[in-house]
Amino acid sequence: MPIMIYTVGLGVVMSLLFAYANYRKVASMSAGTPQMQEIAQAIKEGADAFLSREFAIDIPIIVLISVLFGVFFTPWAGLSLLIGAAMSSLAGLCGMKAAVIANVRVTNAAREGVERKDETALGKALQVAFQGGAVMGLSVGGFALLGLLIVYLLAGFWQAFANPVNLVPIKNWLGVEMTVFTQVITCYSLGCSTVALFNRLGGGIYTKGADMGADLVGKSELGIPEDDPRNPAVIADCVGDNVGDVAGNGSDLLESTIGSISAATVLPTTMYTVLKNSSNPETARISDELLTRMMQFPLTVVGLGLIACIIGIAYVIYKKASNHPSHELNLSLWSSAAMIGLGSLVLSLIFFRGQDTAPAQFRFGWVSPWLAAIIGVVAGITLGMLAERYTSERYKETQDIAELAKKGTALLITGGMSSGWRSCLPACLVLGGAVILASFFCGSYGSPIAAVGMLSFVAATVTVDTYGPISDNAGGIAEMSKQDPRVREITDSLDSQGNTTAAIGKGYAIGSGVLAALSLMLSFSESIGQQGESMTITNFLLIGGAFVGVGLMHWLSGQMLLAVTRNADHMVEEVRRQFREIKGLMEGSAKPDYAQCVRIATNSALREMVKPCIVALATPIIGGFLLGPLFVGGLLLGTILDSVTMATSTANSGGAWDNAKKYIKSMETELTAQYGAARYKDIHDAAVNGDTVGDGFKDVVGPNQDIMIKLMSTMALIWAPVFAAVNLFSLIAK
Amino acid sequence: MPIMIYTVGLGVVMSLLFAYANYRKVASMSAGTPQMQEIAQAIKEGADAFLSREFAIDIPIIVLISVLFGVFFTPWAGLSLLIGAAMSSLAGLCGMKAAVIANVRVTNAAREGVERKDETALGKALQVAFQGGAVMGLSVGGFALLGLLIVYLLAGFWQAFANPVNLVPIKNWLGVEMTVFTQVITCYSLGCSTVALFNRLGGGIYTKGADMGADLVGKSELGIPEDDPRNPAVIADCVGDNVGDVAGNGSDLLESTIGSISAATVLPTTMYTVLKNSSNPETARISDELLTRMMQFPLTVVGLGLIACIIGIAYVIYKKASNHPSHELNLSLWSSAAMIGLGSLVLSLIFFRGQDTAPAQFRFGWVSPWLAAIIGVVAGITLGMLAERYTSERYKETQDIAELAKKGTALLITGGMSSGWRSCLPACLVLGGAVILASFFCGSYGSPIAAVGMLSFVAATVTVDTYGPISDNAGGIAEMSKQDPRVREITDSLDSQGNTTAAIGKGYAIGSGVLAALSLMLSFSESIGQQGESMTITNFLLIGGAFVGVGLMHWLSGQMLLAVTRNADHMVEEVRRQFREIKGLMEGSAKPDYAQCVRIATNSALREMVKPCIVALATPIIGGFLLGPLFVGGLLLGTILDSVTMATSTANSGGAWDNAKKYIKSMETELTAQYGAARYKDIHDAAVNGDTVGDGFKDVVGPNQDIMIKLMSTMALIWAPVFAAVNLFSLIAK
Repeated sequence: MPIMIYTVGLGVVMSLLFAYANYRKVASMSAGTPQMQEIAQAIKEGADAFLSREFAIDIPIIVLISVLFGVFFTPWAGLSLLIGAAMSSLAGLCGMKAAVIANVRVTNAAREGVERKDETALGKALQVAFQGGAVMGLSVGGFALLGLLIVYLLAGFWQAFANPVNLVPIKNWLGVEMTVFTQVITCYSLGCSTVALFNRLGGGIYTKGADMGADLVGKSELGIPEDDPRNPAVIADCVGDNVGDVAGNGSDLLESTIGSISAATVLPTTMYTVLKNSSNPETARISDELLTRMMQFPLTVVGLGLIACIIGIAYVIYKKASNHPSHELNLSLWSSAAMIGLGSLVLSLIFFRGQDTAPAQFRFGWVSPWLAAIIGVVAGITLGMLAERYTSERYKETQDIAELAKKGTALLITGGMSSGWRSCLPACLVLGGAVILASFFCGSYGSPIAAVGMLSFVAATVTVDTYGPISDNAGGIAEMSKQDPRVREITDSLDSQGNTTAAIGKGYAIGSGVLAALSLMLSFSESIGQQGESMTITNFLLIGGAFVGVGLMHWLSGQMLLAVTRNADHMVEEVRRQFREIKGLMEGSAKPDYAQCVRIATNSALREMVKPCIVALATPIIGGFLLGPLFVGGLLLGTILDSVTMATSTANSGGAWDNAKKYIKSMETELTAQYGAARYKDIHDAAVNGDTVGDGFKDVVGPNQDIMIKLMSTMALIWAPVFAAVNLFSLIAK
Repeated sequence: MPIMIYTVGLGVVMSLLFAYANYRKVASMSAGTPQMQEIAQAIKEGADAFLSREFAIDIPIIVLISVLFGVFFTPWAGLSLLIGAAMSSLAGLCGMKAAVIANVRVTNAAREGVERKDETALGKALQVAFQGGAVMGLSVGGFALLGLLIVYLLAGFWQAFANPVNLVPIKNWLGVEMTVFTQVITCYSLGCSTVALFNRLGGGIYTKGADMGADLVGKSELGIPEDDPRNPAVIADCVGDNVGDVAGNGSDLLESTIGSISAATVLPTTMYTVLKNSSNPETARISDELLTRMMQFPLTVVGLGLIACIIGIAYVIYKKASNHPSHELNLSLWSSAAMIGLGSLVLSLIFFRGQDTAPAQFRFGWVSPWLAAIIGVVAGITLGMLAERYTSERYKETQDIAELAKKGTALLITGGMSSGWRSCLPACLVLGGAVILASFFCGSYGSPIAAVGMLSFVAATVTVDTYGPISDNAGGIAEMSKQDPRVREITDSLDSQGNTTAAIGKGYAIGSGVLAALSLMLSFSESIGQQGESMTITNFLLIGGAFVGVGLMHWLSGQMLLAVTRNADHMVEEVRRQFREIKGLMEGSAKPDYAQCVRIATNSALREMVKPCIVALATPIIGGFLLGPLFVGGLLLGTILDSVTMATSTANSGGAWDNAKKYIKSMETELTAQYGAARYKDIHDAAVNGDTVGDGFKDVVGPNQDIMIKLMSTMALIWAPVFAAVNLFSLIAK
């Protein structure tokens, strides 16, 4: 159907051109005083240094995996994997390049506004930050779909795609039977996942190690303010925002998008094979036409979503600057959402009207896929609102936690943990409800379409997500270059509005990640089901696998938290050393050695990320060869279930501690009047401890959960035909 | 087979008589000085007051449930439930009555030993504590099996038991078809579970609230030592040890034992029905004889285990006192384990030799059930050893956490959390491996038999578990009555040895609980499978249920932690109030109001335990009626998987923080010399914070996981036939 290629092609071209235009626009603005430029330069160099060292580790690993896949499966598999990795890296790189030039320009816009006593200073600074963020958002959407198009065209699969009869499995030189189309899509997705894992995990360990280290010595031990230029870790902290929260987050959401599309595209192919090979005469045969349409629908929806986001983003950028940041941000999100809601109804009609949809279990005919997509959108928004309800200081939950700070650190910690754990039930009810409803409407096709629905406005989400760290950096630059406090007020206001909207983005990332992984698991189960093995929960290999799965996710989470802890530990040592050894540092007469902190954070992050990455990549394959596909099915189920609660609880506990600290800080005058300054310091210290614990929770452990499960599910799906044919357990049990 | 009734009857009679003898023996000992007796009296009264108020809440709820079950199912169901509740309560009561008289007598034995300069003072105090603990251990074993015997005999089911053909389902007056035998066993188990939940949860909230409250103000704010008589919460803390760690723990393990036996007894009945009703001519028919033997084997193994434990316990009590507590404790455990290992091989031979075991999927004939039981024993011991490796200060893991205390509370917390999370992988590998191996040997019968194997020496485990809090109380009494420091040294030494052995007990509780719940879930799935519904992981209701299951367990855990936090919060307020308002309290010239703290802890604990208990009891039923059995199957799977990691991680993080604090305390001299007194205080404070966070983790959240999942699985199993017949979803989907 030409509609897919036109929609996607248009979206890709528009988004990449618009991203470039935004980059040029931001670059053309003034970067402020020489002192500001010097600080911005240091951040830029730190970020570049991190990324180039990270690429030096990533590239050989990814090339190695690609070659192995190329040899073991088909050359197309290896090539797709490489292209996926390249697209993910390119998006991260472009977005970060824009962010490190936008940050200082936001500070400068605020500074000029304050100097000119311009009433729209906030709005103008907002537009700069938003434009900087839009480069990332548009790059993520554009490169993700560009890569998919390239993969199809390069491999000559356009024809295969139009005609699923070509999905008949072929044998490679090892005699393993596999569908090349499935392989190309999943390997492209795997390439994106692998880079996302490296960027998100490496970047996360970097940023949180630096952040925690800076806070632990600066705020807690020495009592100097956040972002104080005397703190040697302060530049590393700003660099971290860019490598973790900009590049890492962008790769993460790019991977979520591709993961959802690939799950929704591959699932029909496995269903097709099942229904085609079914010996049961009662099973209705699915038509080739319907199947083709089911495969093309998800990509078209995302292409349409990209166009809708471009319109939403352009509207915020080109309208008159206003002083209501939350209004602007919400406007861009909601207008995109509305356009997608309407557009996908039309697409659903174009694709499925007049088709006999009974074999695909569409309960309400052509409208069913639209219903599933809308359930995804609603579930995503609900998850985001729940996250806000559990983390925003405007709600009772976080205020209660802040109240516990008066009883000391221990109760603040248990109160925050408890809140995070409790928040898992509503989130799981939403996710479970979404799966049940979407599947009720659309059969197995429902869950992946719900995920696609959630992620169709990824460009808008990433834009808002990136706007946050840019504003945060802008605040840091204002502090370090000793601007008028009103400049900092503006950047703080931008940042805090971004936090609220970003909570919705986090809900999206978790929700869509889980649905995508679930869909990949369904595809895996269907493809194993073809060999006649039924994935029932009474099967002991499956149960054993599920136990290992939950244990594995906890181990991976523990490793990530340990990595952050160790990195922060090194940073604490270094900051303490500089304050001890550099004379005059505390008094402000000497300069700290920022570069050394950047080096420590870089080395520590890169060293720590290797072990969890390798374990996550290797476990499904090793498990499959040892204990077979039923074990792997259980393993995937276990990892998915465990990741839901781990991601939700760590994100919400961490967010709540962060905001509890801000809440206490905002009440400083009242609390000091009531309890005295010494007691206020104790209360604030307890809150800082909570925030520090939460840093690793919410920004490293939480966001990596969905990447891990999608990586493992994709890996399992690719290798399924191999270890279904050969595994140790089936040899022994014979 | 008469061998079952003889073995179990002999075990019950011997254990209850021996428990009574131990009680009399301990009661006849001297309780020391009037001051010691006064303190002991206050603890006893506090414990009695808590239990009688708790029973006042429990009894109406349990009677109500029994009546409902009696009406809705059969009168036998209601009666069995009542008897289960009674047995669990009786065991907890007897054990606690012994513990509250033994504690002061341990202090006195140590005191007399120190005064006489007796070199075996430690050994003599050990024997008193061990005898006190044995009353609990033997009561648990004795009452658990006594109740099962009564239930069979009262309901006239002895015959049914001997002849499984009577298992043919009957219809009750509501027209619901059900097997009465299954009902009686599961309802007895449900009665035990319900009381266990109340005791464990209420007791846990009580004890940890008091403990944390006492520490937060006493140790952290005022810098007075643990168990200092000036601290108003100190009696409540001692009471808590008895209601939580003695009565609560006893009911917990009683329930684990009955849960495992009932799972192993019920599973063959569902397998039987499946195999009997199978239309597949290839499915081999299982013989009535083999089925009867499979149903009687687990109870006989536990009966034999009880006798072995009696011998092991008697040996420690009647041999000459020695000064190696760990040696004595291990001796009683290992000798019991060895006897059970040998005895169960003989039982396996008696029960299964000469039978055609192929239909039951016994891979190695008669020896298979023994192999499964041994796998359970080995897995239990391995889990215990893993727990020790992650929590004992003799290992690197805990030493690393202690090291982080030098970097402040925040890193100590993240380090401990990380360690607890990472510890889940080895635990899950052991559990997953046990399930796979036991099922490989014995089919579905393998997992429950492995659980039965683990729990066959429950009497010895509970004895050692109870010995710990008795010694802890003895130390508190020594401190409060201002004994010679050497008396406290003896009780501390007893306590710390108990901790190590108790770690193995915790591994047992988690492992056996998970295997038992898994077996109940298998029974549930088998009984649903009879209606032709297949529990595959591609079913969306099942996946939806699994999401809700993991969310629910996290919510329940969060509620428990919140309850502890709130209780501690109230206690902090009260202790601060007393120090503020009672003049001369800090100087030691005035006495605190202990009773008020006891009242606050009691009220708070009882109020907080109601909500999670009701949710846990009601969810499987409500879920079943709304969304049907596939949803409930997923729900059970989700709760089981979530509980494994939650139980393991909270137990190990909490244990590690506790021991890290002890480790730092033991290094006081070195650390003070190296860093100075002020810095040592900071380090110690950080460690106390970690310990306080861990209190709620390891003693409330962790131990209640297995009770919750067994309660829900049992509930689901009982109600399965009802909501399989009627549920809202099937009405809508039609």
